[in-house]
Amino acid sequence: MLPFDLEEYQTRLQKTKIEMERLGIEVLLVSDPANMNYLTGYDAWSFYVDQLVVVIIDEPQPLWIGRYLDARGAKATTWIHDDYVISYPDHYVHASNKHPMDFVAEFLMQISQGNRKIGLEMESFYFSVRAFERLKAGLPNASIKDGSLIVNQIRLIKSEQEINMMKKAAIFTETAMTKGIEMMKEGTTECDVAAVIYYHLLKEREGMAGDYPAIVPLLPSGEQTGQPHQTWTERKLNHGDAAIVELSGCYKRYHVPMARTVSIGPPSKELQWLSSVVSEGILEVLDRVKPGVTCHELEETWRHSIQKYGLEKESRIGYSVGLNYPPDWGERTASLRKEDFTILEPNMTFHLIPALWFENHGMEISETFRVTEHGVETFTHLPREVLISEDWNQGDKIS
Amino acid sequence: MLPFDLEEYQTRLQKTKIEMERLGIEVLLVSDPANMNYLTGYDAWSFYVDQLVVVIIDEPQPLWIGRYLDARGAKATTWIHDDYVISYPDHYVHASNKHPMDFVAEFLMQISQGNRKIGLEMESFYFSVRAFERLKAGLPNASIKDGSLIVNQIRLIKSEQEINMMKKAAIFTETAMTKGIEMMKEGTTECDVAAVIYYHLLKEREGMAGDYPAIVPLLPSGEQTGQPHQTWTERKLNHGDAAIVELSGCYKRYHVPMARTVSIGPPSKELQWLSSVVSEGILEVLDRVKPGVTCHELEETWRHSIQKYGLEKESRIGYSVGLNYPPDWGERTASLRKEDFTILEPNMTFHLIPALWFENHGMEISETFRVTEHGVETFTHLPREVLISEDWNQGDKIS
Repeated sequence: MLPFDLEEYQTRLQKTKIEMERLGIEVLLVSDPANMNYLTGYDAWSFYVDQLVVVIIDEPQPLWIGRYLDARGAKATTWIHDDYVISYPDHYVHASNKHPMDFVAEFLMQISQGNRKIGLEMESFYFSVRAFERLKAGLPNASIKDGSLIVNQIRLIKSEQEINMMKKAAIFTETAMTKGIEMMKEGTTECDVAAVIYYHLLKEREGMAGDYPAIVPLLPSGEQTGQPHQTWTERKLNHGDAAIVELSGCYKRYHVPMARTVSIGPPSKELQWLSSVVSEGILEVLDRVKPGVTCHELEETWRHSIQKYGLEKESRIGYSVGLNYPPDWGERTASLRKEDFTILEPNMTFHLIPALWFENHGMEISETFRVTEHGVETFTHLPREVLISEDWNQGDKIS
Repeated sequence: MLPFDLEEYQTRLQKTKIEMERLGIEVLLVSDPANMNYLTGYDAWSFYVDQLVVVIIDEPQPLWIGRYLDARGAKATTWIHDDYVISYPDHYVHASNKHPMDFVAEFLMQISQGNRKIGLEMESFYFSVRAFERLKAGLPNASIKDGSLIVNQIRLIKSEQEINMMKKAAIFTETAMTKGIEMMKEGTTECDVAAVIYYHLLKEREGMAGDYPAIVPLLPSGEQTGQPHQTWTERKLNHGDAAIVELSGCYKRYHVPMARTVSIGPPSKELQWLSSVVSEGILEVLDRVKPGVTCHELEETWRHSIQKYGLEKESRIGYSVGLNYPPDWGERTASLRKEDFTILEPNMTFHLIPALWFENHGMEISETFRVTEHGVETFTHLPREVLISEDWNQGDKIS
């Protein structure tokens, strides 16, 4: 059932321990579901309750600790031994008088880990302030350390097996985008486009099951294209509208996001101009990508490219991407921005999304790319410029 | 654009302030996206970055504070004045040397709120430990208090307008369940069932756009039915399999979840027996529902009902449900469990899901109900017993 071979998981664990050693952490409590999956294979929609993977520096196996309902899933989806799957009773869930972290603290004491240097992920979505406080209170002899992003940093460089997963995710990305744009005619309701996109994100393709993306498709149209994180509504597409589609295929939790801007009917001069500016900027950035270049330099390339046209952009133009769970497919490590001097290495993967937003309109064109030994490779191959729904016939190629 | 009238939002705000007063909280920082939506209408997939609604006890308007990219969306989707939409620059996002809460703390100082009694949601998914620590450090003169679940508790009793939203969500629930079961024949891939379910969850119906549910459809089949929070795979349904479908329609972020167990071909004697035990238990619980009864008593009714058949269940049998965002449609307040003595009141709404799980199989049948003035009303009306895919023809009734 594991998507990767055992050696891959053990390499990941080993890298984590090396980093723990460097930071003086003996026990790492991993609460980010992507990090939990990365180290053990654990996969379930159970992250709305407290759960952890515990990496102990001198133990060959990590531990899984979660709700008893989910223990069978942990045994089934991970490589760790059944004895290392520990569960807390249901009366700890969403209760006012006790907390799952009381159980975790007590358990760590029982296995003689209560007085060690314990690292915590301080900015994980599913590790709450109360969880932190109950854990601290329950482990008075532990030395609590910041263990944020240790595993995320390791995830930054993908293995060949991971790159293959992303190539498979890209098939779902291209299909859903192609089928979605095909739907976007005058009079179509935004939600019906979302329905078709979701269908193609999940439907079996080449023997593979599509997985749910960490972010739902974003589909603003008309004036809402200036509001990047709107999803969809009952609004009908009008002749002359621009609409943005941002989506990601997902396979075994790996993502390849992509955005395109679609014109319902012939695009305005303004939209065509913006499209050519953004496409040119993307090309220039991609041309610059190779090992040794920094994230800062990619942003600089973009900045100079659009400056020629009198434009500027405040927000970052991209971020590291790969394995993830809701609410974000970004990895929270390297960003393509002025302040980020991360040096590119082979098999880093980024979503390059240098979107431009204005008061009542926006332009999003994006590519997910991999840094190769000598340059760059994008995961998908759809036309980049503003797409005109009436002329779109790529859908015919896909069943 | 607001789904509710202004008076409804103001009533919610007023109730929040009364509770703040009672708890000695002058400024409440609301980070749960469902609570943010409940108070202001704010709706966007932006909760992967730090954002807040700030309720100041002596100010008529709440404030929205979030990422500058999302400010236009906040102006468009909320009733609060544009001047009360405050945004932080993009270089605060996922950065190592600064944090959005540094901005928030500084802003609260500027508007003279830095020395007040400030309540925080300590168990909100999207309020991290680091956010908490940076906020505390930035507000040395504030008295920090636990403001958890203040708004959640108010959400427990729905208004008539909210009940109407849930009735609309129920249309998507019934349609998606009906169309999903129709798909579940021998040889169908689990992910293809998920694809069809998602299509019908979102597709326009009666002029309404389906919204994304806070939990994706859960679709374990065969032996995986013992693992409740598995989603779907490339597994093909076999003759003789049982499969569980748990899903929720969503309309304007309101949910009506439902679970059913489906037999691919004739059900085993064991499955039929379990189905009749669970259906009988559900009927007995629903019969007991009326204002004045406690959550504890509903669980007790269930416990006694299945005890007759030599069964017991550790986990809670349901929870309050309604407005929500990923990763959970439960409201984290009342649970139908032994230890919960919440007294039922009219327009409380619960997902009653007394599922039974065993080593290699499980049985889920559920209903979402509303407590009425004198009894109970379920939101959906599909047959409750184990459903046999071959005999299922309800799908013909729906276009």
